[in-house]
Amino acid sequence: MATAAQALARFAAGLDPEAIPAAVRDNAALRVLDTIGCALAASREELADPVLSLARRWGGGGPCVVIGSPLRATPPLAALANGCLAHGLDFDDTHSPSITHASAVLVPVILALGQSEGFDGRSALTALVAGYEAITRIGMAAPGRFHERGWHATAVCGAFAAAVTAGRCLGLDDPGITAAVGITASFASGVMEFLEDGSPVKRVHPGWAAHSGLLAAGLAKGGFTGPATGLEGRFGFYRAALGEAPDLAPLLDSLGREWETLRISFKPYPCCHYNHAYVDAAARLRRESGVSAASVADIECIVPQGEVPIVCEPAATKRRPRTAYEAQFSLPFAVAAALLDERVGVASFSQARLSDPDALDLAARVRYTVDPQSPFPRTFPGRVRVRLSDGSVLEARQEHNRGGPEQPLSEAEVVEKYRDNALRALGPARVAELEKAVLGLEGAADLGSLAALCARD
Amino acid sequence: MATAAQALARFAAGLDPEAIPAAVRDNAALRVLDTIGCALAASREELADPVLSLARRWGGGGPCVVIGSPLRATPPLAALANGCLAHGLDFDDTHSPSITHASAVLVPVILALGQSEGFDGRSALTALVAGYEAITRIGMAAPGRFHERGWHATAVCGAFAAAVTAGRCLGLDDPGITAAVGITASFASGVMEFLEDGSPVKRVHPGWAAHSGLLAAGLAKGGFTGPATGLEGRFGFYRAALGEAPDLAPLLDSLGREWETLRISFKPYPCCHYNHAYVDAAARLRRESGVSAASVADIECIVPQGEVPIVCEPAATKRRPRTAYEAQFSLPFAVAAALLDERVGVASFSQARLSDPDALDLAARVRYTVDPQSPFPRTFPGRVRVRLSDGSVLEARQEHNRGGPEQPLSEAEVVEKYRDNALRALGPARVAELEKAVLGLEGAADLGSLAALCARD
Repeated sequence: MATAAQALARFAAGLDPEAIPAAVRDNAALRVLDTIGCALAASREELADPVLSLARRWGGGGPCVVIGSPLRATPPLAALANGCLAHGLDFDDTHSPSITHASAVLVPVILALGQSEGFDGRSALTALVAGYEAITRIGMAAPGRFHERGWHATAVCGAFAAAVTAGRCLGLDDPGITAAVGITASFASGVMEFLEDGSPVKRVHPGWAAHSGLLAAGLAKGGFTGPATGLEGRFGFYRAALGEAPDLAPLLDSLGREWETLRISFKPYPCCHYNHAYVDAAARLRRESGVSAASVADIECIVPQGEVPIVCEPAATKRRPRTAYEAQFSLPFAVAAALLDERVGVASFSQARLSDPDALDLAARVRYTVDPQSPFPRTFPGRVRVRLSDGSVLEARQEHNRGGPEQPLSEAEVVEKYRDNALRALGPARVAELEKAVLGLEGAADLGSLAALCARD
Repeated sequence: MATAAQALARFAAGLDPEAIPAAVRDNAALRVLDTIGCALAASREELADPVLSLARRWGGGGPCVVIGSPLRATPPLAALANGCLAHGLDFDDTHSPSITHASAVLVPVILALGQSEGFDGRSALTALVAGYEAITRIGMAAPGRFHERGWHATAVCGAFAAAVTAGRCLGLDDPGITAAVGITASFASGVMEFLEDGSPVKRVHPGWAAHSGLLAAGLAKGGFTGPATGLEGRFGFYRAALGEAPDLAPLLDSLGREWETLRISFKPYPCCHYNHAYVDAAARLRRESGVSAASVADIECIVPQGEVPIVCEPAATKRRPRTAYEAQFSLPFAVAAALLDERVGVASFSQARLSDPDALDLAARVRYTVDPQSPFPRTFPGRVRVRLSDGSVLEARQEHNRGGPEQPLSEAEVVEKYRDNALRALGPARVAELEKAVLGLEGAADLGSLAALCARD
């Protein structure tokens, strides 16, 4: 019987681009666009400084673009930097059942290796899909267990998937990708301790995963090997990290038949997923009922208990966040943004916004009550009840957070999100050119010109 | 109260070279010599190919020498490659209480950063000692626990120590090194699954640790931070990896007073520690009693039960190892080498040796019996009983494996080991010049010429 690494390797090495449904390939290309947009927006923020400085210091002036910068770096350093940028604003896509940020790990791998190895766009998308199918399954095999134990699933599951994608990009055969996954069992890492003091290390987790898997595949390319049982073995990663190895067989059996790629959610807003449905509900009241900040007496969010410690409490800092990162995890701040901003985006959670009196004044009027009947965490619904100064009460409800499989974003919405993000770093002509290059990726002879368009002089 | 990361950072950032006892500084310089020798010997073996190929592919032609090669690489890639070479033959030093290979992680860090940052030899030794004091304590806090759970202590404890050493090399202050250690909580990794199929991934663990800690320090240098509670916190590395965090306070309290550096064992032979005392006992019979392979009827090793599954069983493959790596973990093969070879060294466990009829014939005559009274694992003793063809019986016993604190190798013995190793890769004049440079490291203005001497055209 094949080990998990062997099953993933067999799928990835043998994946025929023609066997991937067109909808999945198109969806993957849209993810590349979304991810590059997120990275471009992040590249203009302060959070980019440490990774850009690292790429400058130790990037070796390699062939790979660091997004939104004039820097070039070796593939591992470019993957590290771009993975960090892609996840920097917490605006990148997420696969809920595995709780993993998939694209921020995998898109940097195909970009970096596309430039160093020179394969075509179709090969890049095939390698990317192989990685999506891997990261989701590796996480779904132990749902919630990594987080529970203190591991960040994106970081650890991501490293294995990056090895799969990188292995395919490097032209490794079946045993070669198996070796890359086995080596990754000794490279995968990433813990949740940032929750304790809000330190930004989480932002580098997708980049670290991309970088780890890419180096594992690079070692395998040179003939190095790791154990084929690196995932589920007696001293393999699952047992070391979680105390026991889950049964991966049913998830691996569906490889090539069920496409998890399609179930990864695009994020419409650069903030915690839990806030999204409330933002949509409040925005609907603004749009459809003309509710404005000035007319609001107070706003009640009806929330599941499970969301309280993440986005509602401690109430004082949620109403008056100290950092932009804290603002992204504040339900009052997100709901205020929905009533104030035509479009809730990066500016809604910016450093400047933290001292905006209108936002703070409105956030101070947001409170919450707990709904014991909530379907959370099966779905992430949002319900807001607004009491106006004239005493009238309006209510809106959003059943699912938009962007997920139940209520997907349209391609046009993802493109619009990309444009909004990319324009923060590049001029309109360049943004349009890049959009065309990415959406035409499947027919591209190589990734060089696309990558060059991501640079900023 | 300071967190573990803060205590380590305070010690490392504030470490005054003058406050390090001269014996510790000299001992550290000797470790640099030993480590470079091990890496030079490994660079001529097949095992070096994958890492050299990686450094060639993605090393970015940076400023740092890859030992025993003409390659130059960026600091992270050079540290990765050199760490793998240093540990490649399992001939590098080991701190028994923490079960960590210390120098193979830390020497590559000072070498790489010495070349990129340009500090002097005394600064390099100070940073190295700070790392030794860190890796030993991080491992000693949870003795045996990492291995028990499937983690390789060298890999995971090593990454944190590499961050300490790299942080000091980069001139980080106290909060900067704290940040580097906090970031490392998300980078540290390495599992024991290689035991299941003998795959060589273990060899890269010290290099991966060096590379991880170095990149964490590089990110901290650019202003990135990680949680100060990254080691012991609720979602910190110890809890995620082991299920609970040990009390580090007593070990951290002794920083700067007790020097664990001096308790790291040099390895006299390139094989499993368990074999060493038997090699010495058998070699004594050869030297002092003139025992030769031809005169031996059979050899009985009297072993503790705990060593049986590692170096005695399965008996058939231990007597006829399939790979050089398996030979290093074979007691019959090691004892045979002690009677055949003037000097048990790299050649004693080489690929060529695996088909040497004399070695196989003698190994086939080695058996074991279990000593229930053995002091193992407190010490690793060795006892051999040789029955000669004329019916007479000779016995020898070695209480401690040489190289450890109970029976240290002399400086001359370590130097001789270095020469033997280095001559496998470099000419005699170069070996002598390099020896002089390393033993004079404390007075060196920079590490450039020393590093250049490690290269091979």
